[in-house]
Amino acid sequence: MRLYDYWRSSAAYRVRIALNLKGISYEQVPVNLRSGGQRTLDYTSKNPQGLVPTLEDGGAHLTQSLAIIEYLDETHPEPPLLPKEPLARAQVRAMAQLVACEIHPLNNLRVLQRLEHRLGLDEREISSWYRHWINEGFAALEARLKTTAGRYAFGDSVTLVDLCLVPQLYNARRYRCDLVPFPTICRVEEACQALPAFDAARPERQPDAA
Amino acid sequence: MRLYDYWRSSAAYRVRIALNLKGISYEQVPVNLRSGGQRTLDYTSKNPQGLVPTLEDGGAHLTQSLAIIEYLDETHPEPPLLPKEPLARAQVRAMAQLVACEIHPLNNLRVLQRLEHRLGLDEREISSWYRHWINEGFAALEARLKTTAGRYAFGDSVTLVDLCLVPQLYNARRYRCDLVPFPTICRVEEACQALPAFDAARPERQPDAA
Repeated sequence: MRLYDYWRSSAAYRVRIALNLKGISYEQVPVNLRSGGQRTLDYTSKNPQGLVPTLEDGGAHLTQSLAIIEYLDETHPEPPLLPKEPLARAQVRAMAQLVACEIHPLNNLRVLQRLEHRLGLDEREISSWYRHWINEGFAALEARLKTTAGRYAFGDSVTLVDLCLVPQLYNARRYRCDLVPFPTICRVEEACQALPAFDAARPERQPDAA
Repeated sequence: MRLYDYWRSSAAYRVRIALNLKGISYEQVPVNLRSGGQRTLDYTSKNPQGLVPTLEDGGAHLTQSLAIIEYLDETHPEPPLLPKEPLARAQVRAMAQLVACEIHPLNNLRVLQRLEHRLGLDEREISSWYRHWINEGFAALEARLKTTAGRYAFGDSVTLVDLCLVPQLYNARRYRCDLVPFPTICRVEEACQALPAFDAARPERQPDAA
């Protein structure tokens, strides 16, 4: 498999963790979001949205990190990233979507660039925007984790939730969010980071890291 | 089942279509987002994020529209809303997430309210923000549909993509987006709206419609 990747993309980071957990070897192709690599015709022919990641598997180009991870889970079932029972699956997916649909889309690069260049926000206002959506989302996630977390976010096995939580914390730290109100989130992160699959997926360990 | 709902919420609209397609009878409990019904303690005990929809099933409260729809699809398999083959499932999920993760989160009520009240944007600037994200997302979706669409968004059966596409078009029309560049999206919408399950889910047919 081939992963079109950017070291600091938290959506790509989720997929790197999944590939590592499944023990799938993959070639990384860096797409430099800072210099517009995602807008080249070559890349948009693979991913019309011009976003990372894209996973290439047998000639097919898969997009959207959560869809890619469910694909990997269906084609490489071990270790499973979703529980078996429908209600538990729905809870795991909802917690992952809390991060992927309610926090991350508001804080990704193209949005911050629009806030800066179109709406003229300064650095302080952009940081405040960023932290606001993380705080809102993490408060809800922390409340959920109090009833679902074991060693990891949902019981004692790694699930899709952990794959979203760890990259989002990386972003939160970049923007110096106060994480004191979120002890369960931080505890789960620590347990995840002790696993080699998470460690190898860290942004700073990627070949294109600045 | 009981659906905590708001007539104009496009996330709730997706779930209404799914329930109708599956032939599941449900009680609607309106949550008035305009008057803050989503922030009451009673509601946030069911949905800590204070977002709609929430689906109550046998005492459990399910959140996040895509997670709810996959739950309904797993517990009520007919008619299926996802294809059987992993690659096709990934494509359908990715197209649904294109709407649910890349368009809708940037345009929902809490975001527009923050743009207005915190950042002081006027009506013209907010409409421009709204249309920008719809245009970006619809351009990518239209490109995808050119290769995937049959009668509906992915072949000739209704899938999760259609459940996201139709409510997003409702929003696009509210903000008077130019839909001329998106003929495939509009053609698929027309096919969907001819189905009773979609028709009954329209915002203006809901009991709390203004």
